[in-house]
Amino acid sequence: MSFDRLIHKIVETQNPTVAGLDPKLEYIPNYILEKNFKEYGCNLRGASRAILEYNEALIDALCDIVPAVKPQCAYYEMFSYYGMKTLCKTIEYTKSKGMYVIIDGKRNDIGTTMEAYAVAHLGATKVLDDEMEAFGGDALTVNGYLGTDGIAPLIPYCNERDKGIFVLCKTSNKSSGELQDKLVDGKPVYRIMGDMCENWGKAAMGSLGYSAVGAVVGATYPEQLAELRSAMPHTFFLVPGYGAQGGGAKDVMGAFDAKGLGAIVNSSRGILCAWQKEGCDERDFAQAARREALRMKQDITQHFENGIHL
Amino acid sequence: MSFDRLIHKIVETQNPTVAGLDPKLEYIPNYILEKNFKEYGCNLRGASRAILEYNEALIDALCDIVPAVKPQCAYYEMFSYYGMKTLCKTIEYTKSKGMYVIIDGKRNDIGTTMEAYAVAHLGATKVLDDEMEAFGGDALTVNGYLGTDGIAPLIPYCNERDKGIFVLCKTSNKSSGELQDKLVDGKPVYRIMGDMCENWGKAAMGSLGYSAVGAVVGATYPEQLAELRSAMPHTFFLVPGYGAQGGGAKDVMGAFDAKGLGAIVNSSRGILCAWQKEGCDERDFAQAARREALRMKQDITQHFENGIHL
Repeated sequence: MSFDRLIHKIVETQNPTVAGLDPKLEYIPNYILEKNFKEYGCNLRGASRAILEYNEALIDALCDIVPAVKPQCAYYEMFSYYGMKTLCKTIEYTKSKGMYVIIDGKRNDIGTTMEAYAVAHLGATKVLDDEMEAFGGDALTVNGYLGTDGIAPLIPYCNERDKGIFVLCKTSNKSSGELQDKLVDGKPVYRIMGDMCENWGKAAMGSLGYSAVGAVVGATYPEQLAELRSAMPHTFFLVPGYGAQGGGAKDVMGAFDAKGLGAIVNSSRGILCAWQKEGCDERDFAQAARREALRMKQDITQHFENGIHL
Repeated sequence: MSFDRLIHKIVETQNPTVAGLDPKLEYIPNYILEKNFKEYGCNLRGASRAILEYNEALIDALCDIVPAVKPQCAYYEMFSYYGMKTLCKTIEYTKSKGMYVIIDGKRNDIGTTMEAYAVAHLGATKVLDDEMEAFGGDALTVNGYLGTDGIAPLIPYCNERDKGIFVLCKTSNKSSGELQDKLVDGKPVYRIMGDMCENWGKAAMGSLGYSAVGAVVGATYPEQLAELRSAMPHTFFLVPGYGAQGGGAKDVMGAFDAKGLGAIVNSSRGILCAWQKEGCDERDFAQAARREALRMKQDITQHFENGIHL
């Protein structure tokens, strides 16, 4: 249960990072677009097929060095159900390569509706007597604004199906403080959310010190990251904001515990657009992504004295 | 722009309610399930086709008396991309019948990712030189925990494409107070979110007194509903929690302004399961939904002295 599986993958690859799959059409090499537009039409379907081909090549290039991928639902939903099919097939392919899949959907609702999201992303849908996975992720990002009614329905899926969730706590964006930094009896809202995460996690503890209830804490707020690490000792962090958003390797150090565990740092654009930044041949895009992923791994782990260990 | 179009529909039907389309397989009459399982397979695809047939019959029975429908994404996502196709086709059908569509996705993210959600649900996706609607909703529910970075990307879609959003403010569930009632300098978090809504709405004012930035406020908290109505004079409310969750007609009165405007009250299970509650023939399910929708309209509008008017 919980993030034990993710932690083992991180130790195995010695890499505490996750590749964000936020595909925009402008990131995709022309030869892939042209081929798929020709075969499936220059429309939502053709675009979705191009994204799938692009994703699969990236996964092939990353699967032995990066422990996890994080597809961002928004970039698939914008291609309607064709895009959602690509999301589904991307997850299937990622899992076949042994990687851990964090679905970045920031879903939130209450009661039976939140349970429907749990079924959709972490569970299996019942049709008469059969159960079928709809998306089959390993973990899902969620928003805790609605309180326990929005989180409790996920816990059985963590415990019974070996899944995890990441609750938005202190997000990486500039205006995150408008609500999250507001003080409640001297304590910022993000700390209150953090306390709630620690509390929810009690019902889904793993064997490696971390619960199945993780938190999203941005690399762009290094002080709060360290503050939350010490206030939330059982909560695994998903850390966005490294790279394109301005967070550096030193900024994310506060997210890790003494073993180099406790957090996984995301990079999306940095990896996806590496071929454009390098200016290499577009057919070399997946290897450019691999080079960037290795650079990022080195950038972060150089600060660990003894690597990452259990 | 803004909710003017929704308001005109409400006045036209004299009905300030919205039918929530949260289809569960157990709500669907057997003859529809059997037919679609036989034709498309007893799987996610067959289930999704059954839901579409069920939804279309409900829309036919409601379209002249109810101004809007609110499909809840979770119940479609649980059937994977087949379910998302049903969501897409349901929206298309609803619009063809002249109804207003509120997509209940509670989406939230920042910057370009939030823009991708805006494109997906309220805008149109660009593929080379063509633009295609992915889901084509009229309004989308969103979560404002991330602050302005998560809401600002939606505003151009409100202004340029005549769309609206509803931001979670005080939700209907029991534990909503865990975060939303916490006091910041004596003011509850839901009021701070309310102030943010009023502020965001300034950039997207309609001609009937309400902006395109609405708020979700639960029927289960009548006092807060009235408090927020007076604190948020330009914010249209989407009110869940009537019926199955325990809110009654008197509880929602505080949501309305003196003209009977300013709010739309949702009922999902009450309408969808009316045929089961009535115990009528399953083939009469759509007319049972209509009877329940008319009962709900009467239940709420009986308290308006002069109907609903501009």
